[in-house]
Amino acid sequence: MLDTPQDPQIDLEPTRTADVLAAVTARDAPALHRLLDPLHPADVADLLEQISDVQRGELMALWQGAIDGEVLSELDESIREDVIDAMEPAALAEAVRDLESDDVVDLVEDLDAARTEAVLDALNDADRAVVEQSLSYPEDSAGRLMQREVVMAPEHWTVGQAIDHLRTQDDLPEQFYHLILVDPRLKPTGYVSLGRLLGSKRDVELAGLSEDGFRTFQAEAPEEDVAYQFNQYHLISAPVVDHNERLVGVITIDDAMIVLDEEHEEDILRLAGVGEGSLTDRVVETTKRRFPWLAVNLVTAILASMVIALFEDTIATVVALAVLMPIVASMGGNAGTQSLTVAVRSIATKDLTTANVWRVIRREVLVGLVNGLAFAIIIAIVGVIWFGSPVLGIVLFLAMVINMVVAGLAGTVIPVILDKLKIDPALASGAFVTTVTDIVGFFAFLGLAAVMLL
Amino acid sequence: MLDTPQDPQIDLEPTRTADVLAAVTARDAPALHRLLDPLHPADVADLLEQISDVQRGELMALWQGAIDGEVLSELDESIREDVIDAMEPAALAEAVRDLESDDVVDLVEDLDAARTEAVLDALNDADRAVVEQSLSYPEDSAGRLMQREVVMAPEHWTVGQAIDHLRTQDDLPEQFYHLILVDPRLKPTGYVSLGRLLGSKRDVELAGLSEDGFRTFQAEAPEEDVAYQFNQYHLISAPVVDHNERLVGVITIDDAMIVLDEEHEEDILRLAGVGEGSLTDRVVETTKRRFPWLAVNLVTAILASMVIALFEDTIATVVALAVLMPIVASMGGNAGTQSLTVAVRSIATKDLTTANVWRVIRREVLVGLVNGLAFAIIIAIVGVIWFGSPVLGIVLFLAMVINMVVAGLAGTVIPVILDKLKIDPALASGAFVTTVTDIVGFFAFLGLAAVMLL
Repeated sequence: MLDTPQDPQIDLEPTRTADVLAAVTARDAPALHRLLDPLHPADVADLLEQISDVQRGELMALWQGAIDGEVLSELDESIREDVIDAMEPAALAEAVRDLESDDVVDLVEDLDAARTEAVLDALNDADRAVVEQSLSYPEDSAGRLMQREVVMAPEHWTVGQAIDHLRTQDDLPEQFYHLILVDPRLKPTGYVSLGRLLGSKRDVELAGLSEDGFRTFQAEAPEEDVAYQFNQYHLISAPVVDHNERLVGVITIDDAMIVLDEEHEEDILRLAGVGEGSLTDRVVETTKRRFPWLAVNLVTAILASMVIALFEDTIATVVALAVLMPIVASMGGNAGTQSLTVAVRSIATKDLTTANVWRVIRREVLVGLVNGLAFAIIIAIVGVIWFGSPVLGIVLFLAMVINMVVAGLAGTVIPVILDKLKIDPALASGAFVTTVTDIVGFFAFLGLAAVMLL
Repeated sequence: MLDTPQDPQIDLEPTRTADVLAAVTARDAPALHRLLDPLHPADVADLLEQISDVQRGELMALWQGAIDGEVLSELDESIREDVIDAMEPAALAEAVRDLESDDVVDLVEDLDAARTEAVLDALNDADRAVVEQSLSYPEDSAGRLMQREVVMAPEHWTVGQAIDHLRTQDDLPEQFYHLILVDPRLKPTGYVSLGRLLGSKRDVELAGLSEDGFRTFQAEAPEEDVAYQFNQYHLISAPVVDHNERLVGVITIDDAMIVLDEEHEEDILRLAGVGEGSLTDRVVETTKRRFPWLAVNLVTAILASMVIALFEDTIATVVALAVLMPIVASMGGNAGTQSLTVAVRSIATKDLTTANVWRVIRREVLVGLVNGLAFAIIIAIVGVIWFGSPVLGIVLFLAMVINMVVAGLAGTVIPVILDKLKIDPALASGAFVTTVTDIVGFFAFLGLAAVMLL
């Protein structure tokens, strides 16, 4: 919803953005602080993303020094660099110093070398070493996602020992939900939720409290798998281990939620042929990103035109064919998109497997057949009434049924095959499926017309 | 990925599904237990979803009594009813009894009255009253999502008092992460994470440990807003209050993650014109669900045909126009889909607001213009080479630029207007935008041809 003034808890109302811009124009620094300082960093980041480059520059100059690390880590990559460039080195150092290691990693991983150096310089040596080690893991891996600050205890300890130990620590992480149990070689052997720890007698052994469904991740595991498992198994946190099975960090559900959100966003944009990109990208970047998808579509459209060209003589004789021919292709394209979207999502959520692929294909073909028959009857009637030719009605009827069945089949089989070939089905299915439905649609309609009408 | 045998942590490998089916066919109950009992309930639910109705019936008969409540709550709604019907009342009661209140609510809210009664009968009176009260809140509200088991403490208590109190409770919830502080009227006034509680001295006052960014939700608040705020503000848990501001429950991040996942799925399916539905729906349901979207598309396609019909004489004179005309419409449709997907997502994530709507519209129009010019040059050259007519090339060029600019404009403005009118833009934008790009595409191309070629 664009306007949510009725919701008092969502802090960034459009009115506040307008007030902020008014304060910037008036160069009224106290008013700016009054408006921005109470906002959550995520909302400040949203506000910085929604205003223009010029407005952002003026705001930064006026608000100097008040941007904290959390705002930086919330900012969209496309403007994060601009904002970092506009900050004094001292302000940048100040902002970065309070972040947890995973947030610093997230902050610097998309920056260029010079800016990364500027951020790392702000850290003390120990923190810097921790961040640099995380950066040594592959991009989009569990190692990049994890937080290095772990809270662990030997598995033979009792509840009382653990609680006493925790009380003496003065650098516990901001957020932690489990005490990870380790053996003498630092291999995680289980974990105890803090709730269970607090609800147990002091002399109970920790090992006996360890939760079922304990899962660890390899630091090299793709973050996509991590997000899938957090979602599937309702994990709250999970230890990360290196290839010697030694504990190196912990991933918490809030990080997994962000990855899941990004994966979804990526799938939606890929299905629509947008690829990546965000609302704050500039015209040139956006144009470049969308170009390849449109180029693929142009090739598809030209292929469809070549099919039409085969029937130029037929069209010259019966011009009504030119009027009606886009209908069959368009209905096939839409039905195919429905099938492929269901297939692509089911593959992503691992709901479509070798166990049910044939049943799903059969279902999609049957759905195509039933809806195809329904729309074939409708369009045949429209065709007969409009152009007064019963044969044209039969041609429309047959072409529609054929193309809708093909749409259901192609919409399911193509994503499955692409996935088997390790090509992202969200990315490539659309172009293939609409090529099939366009070509079959035009060929079936014009071909049947050439045979039956002439 | 369809096959992930390389990943040992994802438990439901296709081979195991095949083994399970073999055990069912052989009526080998011990083998079935050996295969299914170690699986996570979410994986058992996935397996039950992926096999056929007949296979599921046989499996249930053989595995009798072993389906627990968590499997039921993981199951897709479309087969949950079948599974419940196949269970003995005693087994159902046994399965339901161990669930937390929010899971029971989730389980029964989509069941019919008779099955709901069967599930509620399995609960003791106190649990039943709790579930029935949750069910009294509107569907898809915070009240339905919340868990009734809350862990709270008076705000004036110290850390030591809280820890001692927790240790004497023997019915603490499975998962809790915060101690909610309440005033004497049970109004939540803050919350303390268990990590902070454990890391603090016994004589520290709880009120002083309360976290920043403490948020409460009204029980009537839509779950969509709850999920948005959990995601935006990285909440782990949040208290839910009634209209007297009294604490009535707590929502945890895992519930919010499920809602966010569902919202995303819904958006993807709506954008593709699938509406709702899942892979386990039957042919008849699926056909019915997809029919309305295809019907809207048929109307759109017929409107486009009526535009073509205006130019029947032109096409009869120059048949090449029939060959080329789908290209301009198709490119516009694709560019429009790109723009509308970005707009729909940005509206959903509250990134597109009144503060930046004009800048985004301008960007999309410019992107349409630049890509339009690029593809106009390509298609003009193709047209000239193919049909040897420079004027046809100019017609293609102009029609392409016009339609791509219109696509960028319509793709952004239509979702924004629909949102203002409180119509879900994910649901309705596609039909409107392709109607515009089809009509403008055919009209611009054929109209310019009629003027310039004849």
